[in-house]
Amino acid sequence: MDARPRYDAGTSTLADRYARVRRLSEALVAPLSDADATVQSMDDASPAKWHLAHTTWFFETFVLRDHAPGYRLHDERFPFLFNSYYEAEGRRHARGRRGMITRPTLEDVLAYRAAVDAALLTVIDDLPEAARELVALGCHHEEQHQELLVTDMLHLFSENPLEPAIWAPERKQPVAMPGPVGWIESAERVVETGHDGHGFAFDCEGPRHRALIPAHALADRTVTNGEWTAFIADGGYRDARLWLSDGWAWVQREGIGAPLYWEARDGLWSRFGLDGRRPIDPAAPVTHISFYEADAYATWAGARLPTEFEWEAGAAGHDAGGGNQLDTAGAVEPRPSPGGPAFFGDVWEWTGSAYRPYPGFRPVEGAVGEYNGKFMNGQFVLRGGSCATPRGHARASYRNFFYPHQRWQFTGVRLAKDV
Amino acid sequence: MDARPRYDAGTSTLADRYARVRRLSEALVAPLSDADATVQSMDDASPAKWHLAHTTWFFETFVLRDHAPGYRLHDERFPFLFNSYYEAEGRRHARGRRGMITRPTLEDVLAYRAAVDAALLTVIDDLPEAARELVALGCHHEEQHQELLVTDMLHLFSENPLEPAIWAPERKQPVAMPGPVGWIESAERVVETGHDGHGFAFDCEGPRHRALIPAHALADRTVTNGEWTAFIADGGYRDARLWLSDGWAWVQREGIGAPLYWEARDGLWSRFGLDGRRPIDPAAPVTHISFYEADAYATWAGARLPTEFEWEAGAAGHDAGGGNQLDTAGAVEPRPSPGGPAFFGDVWEWTGSAYRPYPGFRPVEGAVGEYNGKFMNGQFVLRGGSCATPRGHARASYRNFFYPHQRWQFTGVRLAKDV
Amino acid sequence: MDARPRYDAGTSTLADRYARVRRLSEALVAPLSDADATVQSMDDASPAKWHLAHTTWFFETFVLRDHAPGYRLHDERFPFLFNSYYEAEGRRHARGRRGMITRPTLEDVLAYRAAVDAALLTVIDDLPEAARELVALGCHHEEQHQELLVTDMLHLFSENPLEPAIWAPERKQPVAMPGPVGWIESAERVVETGHDGHGFAFDCEGPRHRALIPAHALADRTVTNGEWTAFIADGGYRDARLWLSDGWAWVQREGIGAPLYWEARDGLWSRFGLDGRRPIDPAAPVTHISFYEADAYATWAGARLPTEFEWEAGAAGHDAGGGNQLDTAGAVEPRPSPGGPAFFGDVWEWTGSAYRPYPGFRPVEGAVGEYNGKFMNGQFVLRGGSCATPRGHARASYRNFFYPHQRWQFTGVRLAKDV
Amino acid sequence: MDARPRYDAGTSTLADRYARVRRLSEALVAPLSDADATVQSMDDASPAKWHLAHTTWFFETFVLRDHAPGYRLHDERFPFLFNSYYEAEGRRHARGRRGMITRPTLEDVLAYRAAVDAALLTVIDDLPEAARELVALGCHHEEQHQELLVTDMLHLFSENPLEPAIWAPERKQPVAMPGPVGWIESAERVVETGHDGHGFAFDCEGPRHRALIPAHALADRTVTNGEWTAFIADGGYRDARLWLSDGWAWVQREGIGAPLYWEARDGLWSRFGLDGRRPIDPAAPVTHISFYEADAYATWAGARLPTEFEWEAGAAGHDAGGGNQLDTAGAVEPRPSPGGPAFFGDVWEWTGSAYRPYPGFRPVEGAVGEYNGKFMNGQFVLRGGSCATPRGHARASYRNFFYPHQRWQFTGVRLAKDV
Repeated sequence: MDARPRYDAGTSTLADRYARVRRLSEALVAPLSDADATVQSMDDASPAKWHLAHTTWFFETFVLRDHAPGYRLHDERFPFLFNSYYEAEGRRHARGRRGMITRPTLEDVLAYRAAVDAALLTVIDDLPEAARELVALGCHHEEQHQELLVTDMLHLFSENPLEPAIWAPERKQPVAMPGPVGWIESAERVVETGHDGHGFAFDCEGPRHRALIPAHALADRTVTNGEWTAFIADGGYRDARLWLSDGWAWVQREGIGAPLYWEARDGLWSRFGLDGRRPIDPAAPVTHISFYEADAYATWAGARLPTEFEWEAGAAGHDAGGGNQLDTAGAVEPRPSPGGPAFFGDVWEWTGSAYRPYPGFRPVEGAVGEYNGKFMNGQFVLRGGSCATPRGHARASYRNFFYPHQRWQFTGVRLAKDV
Repeated sequence: MDARPRYDAGTSTLADRYARVRRLSEALVAPLSDADATVQSMDDASPAKWHLAHTTWFFETFVLRDHAPGYRLHDERFPFLFNSYYEAEGRRHARGRRGMITRPTLEDVLAYRAAVDAALLTVIDDLPEAARELVALGCHHEEQHQELLVTDMLHLFSENPLEPAIWAPERKQPVAMPGPVGWIESAERVVETGHDGHGFAFDCEGPRHRALIPAHALADRTVTNGEWTAFIADGGYRDARLWLSDGWAWVQREGIGAPLYWEARDGLWSRFGLDGRRPIDPAAPVTHISFYEADAYATWAGARLPTEFEWEAGAAGHDAGGGNQLDTAGAVEPRPSPGGPAFFGDVWEWTGSAYRPYPGFRPVEGAVGEYNGKFMNGQFVLRGGSCATPRGHARASYRNFFYPHQRWQFTGVRLAKDV
Repeated sequence: MDARPRYDAGTSTLADRYARVRRLSEALVAPLSDADATVQSMDDASPAKWHLAHTTWFFETFVLRDHAPGYRLHDERFPFLFNSYYEAEGRRHARGRRGMITRPTLEDVLAYRAAVDAALLTVIDDLPEAARELVALGCHHEEQHQELLVTDMLHLFSENPLEPAIWAPERKQPVAMPGPVGWIESAERVVETGHDGHGFAFDCEGPRHRALIPAHALADRTVTNGEWTAFIADGGYRDARLWLSDGWAWVQREGIGAPLYWEARDGLWSRFGLDGRRPIDPAAPVTHISFYEADAYATWAGARLPTEFEWEAGAAGHDAGGGNQLDTAGAVEPRPSPGGPAFFGDVWEWTGSAYRPYPGFRPVEGAVGEYNGKFMNGQFVLRGGSCATPRGHARASYRNFFYPHQRWQFTGVRLAKDV
Repeated sequence: MDARPRYDAGTSTLADRYARVRRLSEALVAPLSDADATVQSMDDASPAKWHLAHTTWFFETFVLRDHAPGYRLHDERFPFLFNSYYEAEGRRHARGRRGMITRPTLEDVLAYRAAVDAALLTVIDDLPEAARELVALGCHHEEQHQELLVTDMLHLFSENPLEPAIWAPERKQPVAMPGPVGWIESAERVVETGHDGHGFAFDCEGPRHRALIPAHALADRTVTNGEWTAFIADGGYRDARLWLSDGWAWVQREGIGAPLYWEARDGLWSRFGLDGRRPIDPAAPVTHISFYEADAYATWAGARLPTEFEWEAGAAGHDAGGGNQLDTAGAVEPRPSPGGPAFFGDVWEWTGSAYRPYPGFRPVEGAVGEYNGKFMNGQFVLRGGSCATPRGHARASYRNFFYPHQRWQFTGVRLAKDV
C-alpha cells in the first residue's frame, strides 16, 4: 500500500507535524538491533531500516531535490536502494532482496534521517505551497509505513523460535466479555460517499459520489477471539462448503487452521505479539485473519461482509480519531471494547468490496501519482484503521487494501446482513 | 464457469429442447478423432470427451438417479470420472488429470449419451415439475459446456505445430471498415438491475435490485483488430504506465505482446482459429484478450471499462438473441458489425466489475446449488455472449466471469468514459 | 535413454532383422486406441505414437534422406515433430508437449511407418556399408524405444482410475519361494571391462579397459517382493538413517511408502500392471523402485549396491539372451526365478556407479553421435535388461542409466557386500 | 559439507590448537556488523553468526555435555537453533530460515563462544582420550566452517548493490603470465589411494585401497582467467554441443555467461571480491565456476577433467601445506602461480569423479557419524584446497564435494587427457 494526497490540511504547524511524525518512526525502532532492522522476513514485508530510509528518500527526492535550490543528495547511491516502485523515478533494487542490504547500517540510516530532517527543517518555511503539500503528503506516507513497520517487525520476530518480547505487554483494565452483537439497521438509500476534498486524502478515496446502499444491518462491533474459537471448534477450517473456492485451496495448501500467530497447546490458544507469546483474550477482537477466513466465518455465522459503502455510511458520525490506535511505540494489540458501537481502531475490517476505482477516478500525474490506481485488481478494501495505525491517519473515507490471503496486518471482521 | 438455475421457462417442448441441445454438442465434436476428444491442453481446459460425459452425468445424476424410479447407472465408475466440482456429490478425479482418461473412448462416451438420452426421453413427460426444471437446468448447463467445447478445442489445436483446420472458414460478406466509435451518453440514474425472476437464470444473476449508475458514456461497439494493431504499434505492451501492477508482471513473466493465437510474420498479423491460421480481419472485434489487456487498452485510449451495471443498462432494449452467436457447428469467430449499436454476440465484453454477489444473494441449497457463489473472488464479470455462445443462452442479466489473465475464451472489450 | 552404435553385427539378414524389429513395435501398440497412443502421462514419458514415429524418423533421416538418392520425405512437417533431441538436426517440438499432437493420428503414423519400410526395404541391399550400419543402429535404437513403449504405456494406464487391463495376465507356473540369497565371492582382481568392439554396442560401453575390482560378494539373485514387504513392515520408508539425504527429501516431498504402482488394501499389497491390478507375487523380483529406495534397502539389509564393474564381472559367462526378456507383445512382468544365479532379464539392476565416461571415451561425431555422453552426470548405471527389454538387445557391457528418483522402468536391486 | 574424523594427530598441544582455531574464526568476522553476521543470502549459505554458534554447539554438545561432569548448557534454547543436520541430536531450525535469527545477537554469540572456550580449556587436559579426539575433530570441523564463512560472506556482500569492500586488497607481486600448460604423463598403473589412517581424516577419505588409473596426462597448473576469457569470446557459453545436457539447461535457465561475480563493462571483465569490485587478473586461476562450466571448458579445450584418483596420484610428493591457503583474515583470492606444478591452494579443483563411497566404506556410528555418507549422490569430488582453506586443513586424500551447479566456493579446474 502506498500513498498520495490531493492536498494538505493545515500549514501553520507543518514543521511541528513533520518533526512529530519523524520522531514516532524512530521511537518504533528504538528497541531494534542493527540486525533486527535489516532482515526481511518475507516478500510482503520490508526491513525496518528500509522503511526508515524509504520514507526519508521520499522527502529528499520530491521536496529537497526538486524544491530546495542547491541541495545535494546525502548519498547518490541511496535512491537505487530506497525507491519502492515509482517507475518514473528509475531503476530500483528488487523488492524481495531488500534484506540483503546490511550496509548502510541502521546507524547510517538514522544519520541519513537526521541530515534530511535538518535540511528540510531549515527550508520548510520558505518552501512554495506545492512543496509544502508534498511535505504533508510525505507525513501521511510515513504514517503508512509506521503501520507497516509494526506489522513487519511482528512478522520478523514471529519467525524466531525464541519468540522474543520486544516491548512489555500493555497494561489491561479488566473488561466484561462483550454481549451479543447488536445490529444497526438501515433502509435502502442513496448516500454521498468518498472523500469530499476538504483536508488530506489519497487519490483513491475520491471523487466523492453518490452510491445506493441496500437495506441491511451492520454489526455494532467486530468478531472476538472468543467467537473465533467457537468457529474453530465447530470445524470451520475443515468444511469446504463455508469457503470460497480459492480460499479452500489456500487453506489446504498452507495447512491453515487458525489466525496467524495463534498456537494451541493443551487445548489453550495463545498468540505471538510484540510482547511475546501470551494467551489470547477472548473478549478482544480477532485479528490476523485473511479475507478468506473473514468470509468463511461470515458464511458460518449466517451473515456476510459489509460493502465498503455500507461501512462508510455506518461510520458516519463516529470519531475517526478515537478508539485504540497508535499513539506511542509499544506492544499494540486489539483490546476489548468498553461498549457502544465502535468503527475506528483495533483492527482493519475486511469489506466485501473489491478494490476498484470510484466513478470519475483519475490518478495524479507524475511520479508522485504512482499510484493507488495500479493496484486496483484482485484486492479487497479494508476500513477503519487498527491499533497500529497512527492516530489521526485514518478517515471514514480511507481505503486500505490487501490480497485475500494476506493476514500479517491487524485485520479483523465485522458482520453484516441483508434485511 | 458452471451453471445452476432458479427455475425453468417453458415446459411443453422440453423434450424437443433437450434433444436439440444434445444434438448440437454432438455436432460440435463430429470432426474430432478419439485422440482429439481425449487430450487436455491445459488445466483451465477440459477434453471434449469430458464435456460430453460431464453434461450427461448431470442429467443422469440429478434427474434419472434421483427422479426415475428403478434407473440403474450406465456405469458405476463414471461419476468419479465425470463429476466436476460438486463436493456434495463425493470424490472426483483431479481436474488437471482429465486428459489421462483414454478409456472410456469417445465411442463409449457417445454410447453413454445415447443411453441416457433414451432413458430420459422415455420418462420426461412423467417427471415431476422439480425434475423437469432440472432437465431445463441441465440444458442451460450443457450450453455453457458447448461454449467451452469450442474454446477448449481451439486451444488444443493451437498447441499442434501443424495448426490443423477443423472446419472450413466461414463465408464472409465484404463489410466496410467500421467508422469511429459513437458514444451513448447517460445521466446519473438509479436502475433496476439483475434478473427479474421470469424465465430461467443462474442464481448469481439475482436478486433484481436497484443500483445507481453515474453519468457516463458507453461506446456503441467493441474495439476492433485494426484498433488493436495501433495499440501494439504504439508500444502498448511495453509501457508499464498503462498496466495494472499485476498485469504488468503477467506481461513480463509470460512475454505477452499480442492477443492469444496472434502471430506476426513480415509485419502482418495472423490468428489461429478452427479454420486454421489466417490473416486477421481489421474490421472484426478483437478477441482472446485478457482483462489486463482490456484495461491497458482502455487506459491507452483515455477511457475505462464499463461497469456491469452500465453495460446492462446500455443493453436494455437490445435483442439478446441477435448478433453473431452459435447456431451450428463450425469455425465461429467474431465478425465485423453491419453497423448500429450491438451488445450481444461476437465477444464477451470485460467489465470493470469484480464478480461479487448482489445484495441479498443466497446460493441454492444442495449439490445443484454448488455454486456460482464460491467463485466470487478474484474474477471479473463479462457480459453479452460471444460467437461461441449457443443462441438463446445469453441474457441481458447474464454474468460470465474469468480471472484477469485468462483469454482462451472469445473475450473482447467495449470502452466507457466518465462524462 | 537414447542409443548409438559403433558398428553392426551381421549383415546378411539385415532386411529380416529390420522387418522383425519393426513388426514388434506394431504388435506392442496393437491394443491401443488412437487416444491411448496420443496422450503423454508425464514429461519423462512419451506417447506411443511418438515412439512409433520417432523411430521411423530416425531411419528416414539418417538412412533414406542421406543415402537413398531421390528419396522425398513422407511429410516435410514430421521432422520438427519427431526429432527427439538431436541439436544438429534442427529445431524440434518441446518434449513436454508431445501429448498435444492429436494429429497426425495413429493411423497416419502407421502409414508413415509402412511408407518408410517400403522405401527402405527396396533399397536396403544396395545401401553402402555405412548406411547399412545406420540401419542396424536404427534397429537397436528402436529396441530401446520398444522398452520405453511398454513402460510409458504402463504409466499412462496407471493414471486412469479405471485401471484398464491391456493384455491378459501371463500364465504362471507355480514356483517355490526362493531360498535365502547365496553370495558369490570374488577376490580383488583386475578385470577387462566394457565392450570389446566385436558386434554392436553403444559408444558409452567402451572403450574396453582394465579396472580393479575389490574383494566382494555378489548376491546370486535380486531382491523379491516378499523381502521388500519386510522392509516396509520394518519401517524402512520412515527411518531417515537408512536414506541418502536427497533420497529422504524425495520420500518426504512425494509421500513415498512403497514401489510405484503398489497399493495396500486391508494389509494386502497389489500392483498395477498391463494386466490390470493384481496381488503382488512375493517370490518375484521387486520392481519399479528408485535408486534411492534400492540404496536404502541395501543399507537396511547391511549390504550395499554392486558397482557396475562388479556386476559385469559377475555376469561373465551368463547368457545375455536368457531369462525373462521381451519376446512378444503382452503383459510382461518380472517372474520368480527357477533357481540358480541369473543376471539377465526381469529387472534392470541399479548399481552404485554414477554414469560417467570410461577412460578414453569419445562421443561419435555428427548428429548420430548425440550423445550418450551428454547425459553423463547425475544418473546411475543399471545393468542386465528387464522383462521389457527385447531379447537380444542387452549385453554384459550394456549401460542403462536413469536419475536416482526415477522408477517407471522395470528397475530392481541385487545386493553386494565387502568381504 | 560437514566433517568427521577417524582420530586425531598430536595431543600435547591440543589446547593451543583449539585456541588458535577459535581465534581465526573470530578474526574472520571482525569486520562484520551484527546485521552482516545475521543475514542469510541464499539457502546454500549460512549467516556468519550461525557458523560461529554452530561450531561452538559442536564442542558444547559432543565434548562438554557428554564428557565434562556437571556442565550446564550455556543456553538451553541454542541446540535447536544451532544444530545443523544431525538427526540423532533432535529437531532443529529449518536451514532456509537461519537468517531470521536476529537474536541472539552477534555479541551474544561471541559471549557463547567465550563461555564454551573457558569451560573447555579448563577441562581439556583432564578429558578422556575419546573426548580429546572429539576436540580435535571439532577443530577440523570449525576449519571447514571457516572456509564457508569466507565464501558465504562473499556471497552476501555480492548481493549488496553498493558492493562494499570488507578488507583491503592483497598486496600483489608482479608475476609473469604463466606459459602454456605442461602435461605430466603417467602410464597405466595400480595405485594405493585414500587416507592411510595415520593422522586425522574424515571418514569418506578411506579406507585406503588399490585403484587402477589409466594412462593419462595431467596439466601442471589450473586454468587461468585469461584462458577463460578466450572461452567466453569463442562463444563457449552459447554452444550447446560443449555442455552436458543438464548443464546446458542450467545455462539457459539461469542466463549464465561468465563465472560467478564477474561483470563486463566496455569489454573489460571485473570480479567482485571481499576487497570490492576489481579487474580480473588474467594470470590468476579462474574461480567460482560450476562443474558444468569446468566440464564444458574441458570439452572446448579438447581435454577432460581428471578423476580423483588421477589427481591424488599426481599430487603425491607435493606439500599439502604449501601454496596459497588461508593463514589470516583478509581478502583472499587465487593468485598467479610462481611456476612449477602446484596442487594445493588457490582453488578447489573439480574432478570428473562422482562423490561415492570407497570400497569398504562404513560411516562412523552415532550422531558424530552423520555423515559424509548420506551426501553420496549427485555431487562431484573436488580436490586440493583453496585460498579460503585454513592452511593445514587439506590433505592429498581430502575429498570436498558439491553439486554440479554450485559455484560460490573457490572452485576451479585442472585439465587432463587420455594418452
